[in-house]
Amino acid sequence: MITRLTELFLRTLREDPADAEVPSHKLLVRAGYVRRAAPGVYSWLPLGLRTLRKIEAVVREEMDAMGAQELLFPALLPREPYEQTNRWAEYGDDLFRLKDRKGADMLLGPTHEEMFTSTVKSMFSSYKDFPVTLYQIQTKYRDEARPRAGILRGREFVMKDSYSFDMTDAGLEESYAKHRAAYQRVFDRVGISYEICKATSGAMGGSASEEFLAYSDNGEDTFVISSAGDYAANVEAVVTVAPSAKPIDGQPEARVYETPQSETIEALVNWANSEGLLVDGRPVTAADTLKCMVVKVDDPRLVGDDGEPVGPRLAGVLIPGDRELDEKRLEASLAPATFELASEEDFKNSAFLVKGYVGPRALIANGVPVYADPRVVDGSAWITGADESQRHVVGLVAGRDFEVDGFVEAAEVREGDPSPSGNGTVKLARGIELGHIFQLGRKYTEAMDVQILDESGKRAVPTMGSYGIGISRMMAVVAEQRHDDKGLVWPVAIAPYQVHVVVANKDAAALEAGETIAAELDEAGLEVLFDDRPKMSPGVKFKDAELLGMPFIVILGRSFADGIVELRIRDGETLEVPAAEIVGKVRDLVAAGH
Amino acid sequence: MITRLTELFLRTLREDPADAEVPSHKLLVRAGYVRRAAPGVYSWLPLGLRTLRKIEAVVREEMDAMGAQELLFPALLPREPYEQTNRWAEYGDDLFRLKDRKGADMLLGPTHEEMFTSTVKSMFSSYKDFPVTLYQIQTKYRDEARPRAGILRGREFVMKDSYSFDMTDAGLEESYAKHRAAYQRVFDRVGISYEICKATSGAMGGSASEEFLAYSDNGEDTFVISSAGDYAANVEAVVTVAPSAKPIDGQPEARVYETPQSETIEALVNWANSEGLLVDGRPVTAADTLKCMVVKVDDPRLVGDDGEPVGPRLAGVLIPGDRELDEKRLEASLAPATFELASEEDFKNSAFLVKGYVGPRALIANGVPVYADPRVVDGSAWITGADESQRHVVGLVAGRDFEVDGFVEAAEVREGDPSPSGNGTVKLARGIELGHIFQLGRKYTEAMDVQILDESGKRAVPTMGSYGIGISRMMAVVAEQRHDDKGLVWPVAIAPYQVHVVVANKDAAALEAGETIAAELDEAGLEVLFDDRPKMSPGVKFKDAELLGMPFIVILGRSFADGIVELRIRDGETLEVPAAEIVGKVRDLVAAGH
Repeated sequence: MITRLTELFLRTLREDPADAEVPSHKLLVRAGYVRRAAPGVYSWLPLGLRTLRKIEAVVREEMDAMGAQELLFPALLPREPYEQTNRWAEYGDDLFRLKDRKGADMLLGPTHEEMFTSTVKSMFSSYKDFPVTLYQIQTKYRDEARPRAGILRGREFVMKDSYSFDMTDAGLEESYAKHRAAYQRVFDRVGISYEICKATSGAMGGSASEEFLAYSDNGEDTFVISSAGDYAANVEAVVTVAPSAKPIDGQPEARVYETPQSETIEALVNWANSEGLLVDGRPVTAADTLKCMVVKVDDPRLVGDDGEPVGPRLAGVLIPGDRELDEKRLEASLAPATFELASEEDFKNSAFLVKGYVGPRALIANGVPVYADPRVVDGSAWITGADESQRHVVGLVAGRDFEVDGFVEAAEVREGDPSPSGNGTVKLARGIELGHIFQLGRKYTEAMDVQILDESGKRAVPTMGSYGIGISRMMAVVAEQRHDDKGLVWPVAIAPYQVHVVVANKDAAALEAGETIAAELDEAGLEVLFDDRPKMSPGVKFKDAELLGMPFIVILGRSFADGIVELRIRDGETLEVPAAEIVGKVRDLVAAGH
Repeated sequence: MITRLTELFLRTLREDPADAEVPSHKLLVRAGYVRRAAPGVYSWLPLGLRTLRKIEAVVREEMDAMGAQELLFPALLPREPYEQTNRWAEYGDDLFRLKDRKGADMLLGPTHEEMFTSTVKSMFSSYKDFPVTLYQIQTKYRDEARPRAGILRGREFVMKDSYSFDMTDAGLEESYAKHRAAYQRVFDRVGISYEICKATSGAMGGSASEEFLAYSDNGEDTFVISSAGDYAANVEAVVTVAPSAKPIDGQPEARVYETPQSETIEALVNWANSEGLLVDGRPVTAADTLKCMVVKVDDPRLVGDDGEPVGPRLAGVLIPGDRELDEKRLEASLAPATFELASEEDFKNSAFLVKGYVGPRALIANGVPVYADPRVVDGSAWITGADESQRHVVGLVAGRDFEVDGFVEAAEVREGDPSPSGNGTVKLARGIELGHIFQLGRKYTEAMDVQILDESGKRAVPTMGSYGIGISRMMAVVAEQRHDDKGLVWPVAIAPYQVHVVVANKDAAALEAGETIAAELDEAGLEVLFDDRPKMSPGVKFKDAELLGMPFIVILGRSFADGIVELRIRDGETLEVPAAEIVGKVRDLVAAGH
């Protein structure tokens, strides 16, 4: 098939779109792959649709190869199944909700656990029908608070979601492992640079889960990899390596000091060192101080006697003074509860909170739950607020002077922290979530009362896995990883066309020769984009070819009179190739999946 | 590829679903092709999705072959473009509307004229870019008042919609003709029996349009074909063949009679004949009487001085007494205005309306517009209401005793009516709309102010065509046309699998032989469904194979010991074929597209 630029529905732009900040967004719009229709909602123009379909095909092949079966659920869904699992309420503003003409509540599906589960429930009843893995490639909807970066985080997007149903936990682990391997094949085929990171499971519930994070400085996720190469995790899932507990006996008593104007950690450390305080014989550092942050936690699972949610309640969060609060880590740690920092109002309403001097003791004494960073081990001694203005307490020992209600991952992870694997230290990188695999367990099958007869004739609840790949996002990820200042650089696997033929001379003979070469490439089974614009300058044609980013650009230029064409490998060198050999050369390069 | 029934996500049902009335709905649910998720919203199970994708592929091939370019617009759309063309208001309850988290109005796209038009406007500016034809295959949404018959009329459905943009009317006609031919190829390839019928253009606006109606007794549309074979039209588009006007001079004066208890046409005719009245020397028939129906018409185009719509207003509709009102024809004739019959309340509120005795004169005298069937030509004389209780008027002559405000197609079309083509008479049939092609003209390009520089450097507005095919509906249409009392009967072109292998013996050797034949069919490039269920009775397997409806069923039964397999052609004979020849035989039949 030959597509001609004189006919293609395309208009490239020289200027970046005003709302674009990241390269993939700029380039995909400028190169005419996608076009904005509304915030976070994009149209797929012909080139973009071809790449999207190729990504879908790669994913479909790997899903079929692992034995998953494709089906397709509606995007427009009734409220009831989402009511059964409580997600109608839990989803909040992220869910697009609407009413039909009869006033029935409906929603646009953000993810389809409920539909898959209820369908399996209605169709299967015996262990003999299991395991089964089902998937769909579908347009999905989430009313993101901050849609960003074009198709990187849209409100309408294409996703592959699959769900495994197994009768046993061992079966779930096998289904999970198969998905993990299939995802690796998908991302490897598309040539993406990524890490498989331990993840939290967020609003989905369930236990084990991993994310496939593509390396990108423009990513929203931060992940760690250990220097020993044996550990990778989203920072949200990093479990702090806590020191051992210390003996309490023999530690000096806690003592309250006047600490004027020491509301920051820096000021507090300066004060301590000006007093000549020592910790283990060395000067005090920020790591010896303990920040006591006051937050309000809203846990949707907590309901009062009246059946209504209890709403936000005060809590304390203790983290070493040398670390910042990482709000995403704390949120992941508290999920499905959410939190916000206590307001001025909250401080006013609770007289025991002395701003700048809050310590764990007043909170505990007033019945406020206190959660600590895992480094706050029994026997650790801290300099922290004394719950009185201009006063701090020194040598406040955990397990002796205060007891926390639990531990929480709230402190930032830092480059050089010990790796949770026990080997080496961690490095930090930023990434974009391409895929996520979960061992969901029985959360949905229990909520929807799926009962299957097992081998012994007893009723059993199957266990589920849930697995997603962002299909449209993958296109943005590839554009992020593969571009230069001139434009896009597609891998063969998902390029809209494999080869772009450019006629650099304006005479009719050159155009005719271009036709011939394009036809020969086409006959060799290649997908050809042919710049047959008769009056366009070579400079504009080259610029467009580089912007559009096909992997191979064949140019009929000056040396064509001598039987030579130029072959520009978009991400590599430029070769001079005898015209008679160009088809074979391109075919070989395409077959090699350059 | 071999798909095994021991693995396929499928559960066939012996009972028809309770809500199903037509065969396609019953069979597609029973055979596990689709499953209801909400009223008018269906899930596509693996077999159904395969057929859906094959229909899409046929349509895509023919669209690509005619030079149309595929792209994909969002389903979730902003309100603004639909505001520009007034369709946000015009669509009424059929449109799914929603608000996003910021309160912005959005809609789920029922059809995409606005998006295509605005995109062409933003990308193209010169006549050199035209003509261009764009299409998408997309999930669409309409909040139908009465979703029915499963996927035949759903609220979420898959449609191919395309739009041509031409600089000249001649160009539009060419684009239209290309679509017409492509649609014929699509429906012929799928083996559908259909007629191309003249159509009204409904809410889309525009002029020339035709519908592709599939023959089906369960269709919602009625169409006519002329006995001479030179005319086919949806009844909504049938233009009445009106008789010539008659001389008024010399006709007797209208005369009012006492006509007790003659509120029906039958009673009125009986009264006339008991009085001995004659028309052209023969007894009076119902065709000599004139029904004067009172309706309320709501025309969204009419606004008052305050800019608000004027709302429903009274109108009279005159049709010959021997014909019923065809509400769909009247609605099509009045579109975009809608109507309803006048209520008891309306009669009470208008003293000049004497129920059972309404004639045109009181309406006209009271300023109510009156529209007539085209048979009410000047000089035609009628027996009709005298606007007084128990009285009718005889010899009321159109053009002399009353003048109508216009003509309207409101009367039913009947078998045997003269064909509008001038040749022969019409027959009636029922059908399902598969596709619709419109010459839209400049309605949308003008509303959205598309200005293109023409060859002489002047601004010109391109003209549009709009063309649709119901992709998911096509599957239901094929099921309607091709089934028997045992199940579905797919044509090769869109069957989920080409051949279904059934092992009728329960012994392991037979199953193994089945594996071998399935593998050989697969190696020959055929799509194989293999019933490898080891313990299932042959009767159940046969029933399932007939229900599922693959075109060829290969059975390893009793005579397999003698090297013979049975080949059941689903819509034809059963053959005995030597096992060694079965692959070649099936491959030939598939290639012939049986």
